[in-house]
This record gives sequence, structure tokens and C-alpha cells, in this order.
Amino acid sequence: MAAAEDIGSLEEIRDLLKALPEADAEAEEIARERQAQLTKPAGSLGRLEELAVWLATWQGRNPPSVDRPYTAVFAGNHGIAAKGVSAYPPEVTAQMVQNFIEGGAAVNQLCSLANADLRVYEMALEEPTGDISEEPAMSEEDCARAMAYGMMAVESGIDVLALGEMGIGNTTSAAALCHGLFGGAAADWVGAGTGIDEARRAEKTALVEKAVALHKGVLDDPLQVLRCLGGRELAAIAGAILAARMARTPVMLDGYACTAAAAVLHALDPKALDHCQVSHMSAEPGHKRLLARIGMRPLVDLDMRLGEASGAMVAVLLLKAAVACHSGMATFADAGVSGPSENE
Amino acid sequence: MAAAEDIGSLEEIRDLLKALPEADAEAEEIARERQAQLTKPAGSLGRLEELAVWLATWQGRNPPSVDRPYTAVFAGNHGIAAKGVSAYPPEVTAQMVQNFIEGGAAVNQLCSLANADLRVYEMALEEPTGDISEEPAMSEEDCARAMAYGMMAVESGIDVLALGEMGIGNTTSAAALCHGLFGGAAADWVGAGTGIDEARRAEKTALVEKAVALHKGVLDDPLQVLRCLGGRELAAIAGAILAARMARTPVMLDGYACTAAAAVLHALDPKALDHCQVSHMSAEPGHKRLLARIGMRPLVDLDMRLGEASGAMVAVLLLKAAVACHSGMATFADAGVSGPSENE
Repeated sequence: MAAAEDIGSLEEIRDLLKALPEADAEAEEIARERQAQLTKPAGSLGRLEELAVWLATWQGRNPPSVDRPYTAVFAGNHGIAAKGVSAYPPEVTAQMVQNFIEGGAAVNQLCSLANADLRVYEMALEEPTGDISEEPAMSEEDCARAMAYGMMAVESGIDVLALGEMGIGNTTSAAALCHGLFGGAAADWVGAGTGIDEARRAEKTALVEKAVALHKGVLDDPLQVLRCLGGRELAAIAGAILAARMARTPVMLDGYACTAAAAVLHALDPKALDHCQVSHMSAEPGHKRLLARIGMRPLVDLDMRLGEASGAMVAVLLLKAAVACHSGMATFADAGVSGPSENE
Repeated sequence: MAAAEDIGSLEEIRDLLKALPEADAEAEEIARERQAQLTKPAGSLGRLEELAVWLATWQGRNPPSVDRPYTAVFAGNHGIAAKGVSAYPPEVTAQMVQNFIEGGAAVNQLCSLANADLRVYEMALEEPTGDISEEPAMSEEDCARAMAYGMMAVESGIDVLALGEMGIGNTTSAAALCHGLFGGAAADWVGAGTGIDEARRAEKTALVEKAVALHKGVLDDPLQVLRCLGGRELAAIAGAILAARMARTPVMLDGYACTAAAAVLHALDPKALDHCQVSHMSAEPGHKRLLARIGMRPLVDLDMRLGEASGAMVAVLLLKAAVACHSGMATFADAGVSGPSENE
């Protein structure tokens, strides 16, 4: 991924997608064998068992580790925010970035709890992307560079990458991405975001519908959908997911906006998210529909809808629980515990 | 609760139930006010917000704490285990207690992760309770003393109490408790437990049906249901929940067996579990039905079915996340972040 800083076109991104590395089948087998020997009925730790095996599979080692998760939060501003699609004014994006830097946001507390390194990536906040209801969000070069910027966030030695975003107006972009990629009605994909009322939600829906209609000529190309309907922080998330795949780094996705960005890669190759888990089911109603489309089951459902990797960090605690059990438990042989009775 | 060691009759337990303390409404209000000022859209942390307020309400202070959770695992043996209702032989109860003591079980790893004190309470393992399909599990005195034993586990200064159990055969007791308390068909409440096949599950169902029919004369008295169909570790859990209520200590319940024990108190007084949360939805199918009956929503659904407080400890990680956000986040005023726009 050393070449990420040189990427300046979407064609270079397409080339990367042609050579996605596979999981490590040997590490998976070793991890499954260990699970079968631990002092518990087979399968009784449920998804914690699956998570431990999944981590081993992508990290290529057993036991896997979640000692130093890396949390990347990308922040961008959206031209369409000027149309009042959010309950909050656009300047809140930069104010919240400052809050992240000063340690006052939810994600700061959750990263401290999980012993995660948090880095916030500001993406030209003073220069919002184009208003998607009137023009493409980004030029080809701007979109490719935003993806490359996200790719550069994936350093070597990260055991788990948690992704999140901040951007007033970006659930509008997420809804437009989903509507553009998966069709349906615009209203299917539009929620209350930061907390708008029904009247504003209707306006938001109309803008999403207009945006997708305006860019209907590109809907068969997911990267063009990202360019025209997305935003810089969403392109960066897609880039980070891609770079993590190249490095076989497991990824924890956050909520609606984050998963919408990931869905662009899924639309390009349904295997592109095999190294990712969806942390939680967002209270934003489009998320459930989106997860059904990409066939992913979230780890928790806690009615969260904050973004900024907050759901991802809650799920990282579950990864830690999974690895703690996988690594630390005694085997039946070690502990002298009897296995299932012969008459079973 | 100093008198718990003197309790020797179920009448003394009934007296305690007449004077359940209420939550601290003032602490609740202070916690809700703080939540409204934190740098996030109102409600956007979903159940994490509710959990923080719930902890403050029962701990009677703001911010609440989850610095030193206390995990109590009660272990008991069941006469009915000799009938082969479990995939594992009865001696596994004592072997697993030894595994807890040596630090090799799942709950040990999860308690280390959560910085929790783990204590395991062995309850006359060499002397199983009566086979519920043939006789009452316990005498009145034995049941009352088992409840009192559980009450004594609740020491002062515990910020959160996580409860769990170990007992080969105890999903059979749990099923009998639920069938006795809530009716329906025996098969509604019987699952695969540690992993039995369909033929053994049918035998287990027939035994549950027989046990409840045998004790049909006591089904209108939840404490007698516990005595006749329960087990010592389940009685101890009910006692611990009661003592925690007296001390206004928040309680995290585990899976099916633990919640079935709690349901005895709920049947006596529907408000008796207001200081409790159900940690997870067990893969044991009766748990979902049970939670619907007592009106409680689990925090996570991870297909777990291990018991030994493993699900409770996963949920304690969520409590820590809730408190971290509640205590550590900046307010809008502190961080200089704009609130919702005027035109909302």
C-alpha cells in the first residue's frame, strides 16, 4: 500500500479490487480446533467463538489479538448541508473534530476504555463537497484522492481497524448512495439523522430523490455512485476498507454512513467485505435494509445512531471478550473436565 | 441484610418482599439532565444512555460507576441429572468449579477483562437436590437457607452484581420453573441445554412435564415452585437478587437458568426486578419466551448458551461503555459545539 499516496484516478482503485487477498484457511482451521477443545459445550459461546475464528483467519495467526485497536474517524463537509438536511448547522463538523482532539466526544471515552489509538482525519472541512442534488459531490480526482487518503490510514501492525465518520449532512449522502446502489424508494433510505422532524425528513427525502435522478447515468458504476453521491469521508472509509483488505487487517464497521460507504465496495465485489464485521444495527432505519442487501448481521442492536465509530468501539469490546476466552480458557484435557457422556 | 445468615424459613423471605426499596428518583433526574447536555444528538447513544441513567438511579449517585463489578457464580447439583438430561455427566459441576478456581473457564477470562471480582459458591455438590420428577428438589428449610446463602453474597460497596450459575441438569430445572410459573406446554420451555440430541430432548421434556404435574398443588405459590422444581444455585440467585435490591445494587442477570430463578421473584412482585437487566438472549429457546413473559429486553443477542455468568460479563462491558460516555463526555457548553439549528 506504499503507493496509496500516488493514487489519483478511480482506475487505479479498480485495479486494486482485482487482486483482493483471501483469508488464511490454515489459521482458521487451527483456531477452530482450539475452540473445540475449550472447557465449554461446543458452540456455547455463540458469536464470540465465530469472532475469535474470524480474527485469527484475517490476522493469519492463532491466537489472534485485539491489544491495540486503531480507530480512524474521517470528517468531511457536504454541500447539501446548506439545504438544512440536518438538525445541526454545518459548522458542527469542525467543532466536533475539535471535540475529538480535546477528548470530549463519545468515541474518545470508548477508545480509552478499549485501549484503542484514535486518529481523526479532517478532509478539507472548509471546502464542502458539491451539493449532490445539483452536481457531483466530487471530481474523479478528488474522489480517488479521498480514497487514497483513507488507504493511508491503514498502517502496518494494526490488529483491528475500527472505522467511523463525522460530517453534518452525511446521512443524506448515505441515503443517496443506498438509493443509487440498491434502488427502492428514496424514502426507504432516509431517516431522522441527528433528529429532524417529519417535515424536514420529507424535504431530505425529496433531495435524495432529486440527487439520484440527476446522476442516474452513473448508477451502474458503484465508484461513480460514490463520486457523485458520496462525500470525502465516505470515500476515505471505502479506501481504508480496501487497504485493510490488502493488509489482511480485520475491520469493524460503524453504523449507517460507514456501512453505506462499505456497500460501494460490496457492489463492486460481494467478497470485498469478508474481512469486515458490522458492529451494530443503527437506529437509522435505512441501516437494517442496507444490511439485508449486503447480507451482514450486526453484532449488537442498542438503538445507537451517533456515528464517529461509537458503535464500532462498543463492538471492539466484544472482540476483546472473544479473544480473551479463545486465548485464556483451559482445554478439557488441561482442566480434567469430562467431555460429553458416552450415551449421547 | 445482616440477618441473612439467620433466615431459615420461606416466611422470612416473604417478609422481605413486602418492603422492596424504590429507585432514587432524584439521582435519575440528575443523570437525565447530564445526558441532555453531552455533545451528541439527544438519544443517539440509545441504550447506553438508558443504562447510565439506570445505574445512577439504583446506585443513587451521579455519575454512576462500574469500577469493581462483583461476579457471583452459584454451583449446585440436581438429582434429575442422574436421568441423563444433560450431554455431560453430573461430576462436571464439581470439575467446572475447580476450573473456575484455577482460572480456566470462560467467566474467568471475562472477569479479568472487566476487572471484576469473581467468587464461586459451591452448594453441597456432593449432595444433589431431590429428583424433581419424583420429589421436591428441596425442603422448605433447605430452600430458605439456599436463598439466604445467596443473600450473603451481596456485600456492601458492590457497584454492579453479575450473577451466574453452574449445575449439570439445571436447564431442566429452569424449564420446570418456567412451565410451573407460566404454563404453556412443557416443550415450549425445553431446549438442547449443553447439546443433547432430539431423542434426549424428548425425554427431558417428558420429565419436565412429569415434574410439574407432580407438584401441581403448589403452582400458585412461586416460592414453593422454586422449592419443588428449582435447585440450590437457582434459589441462591433469587436470594442474591433480593439482597441486591435491599442494598439498591444494580444486578446483571445471565441467561436462561439465571432468568428463570429471577422470574420467581417477578411472579411474587412484578416490580422485584426493576434493579436488574437481562444481559443477553440465550440460544436456549425458552429464554425468549421467558423474557416476553416478564417484559424484559436483553442487551445483546450473541447466540450464547454457556451460563456461568458469561453473558452477564459481556453485558458488564456495555455498562462500562455507558458509564465512560456518561462520565467522560464534554457538554455542548464546555466544548463550544453548536446545538440544533433554530429552524428545527
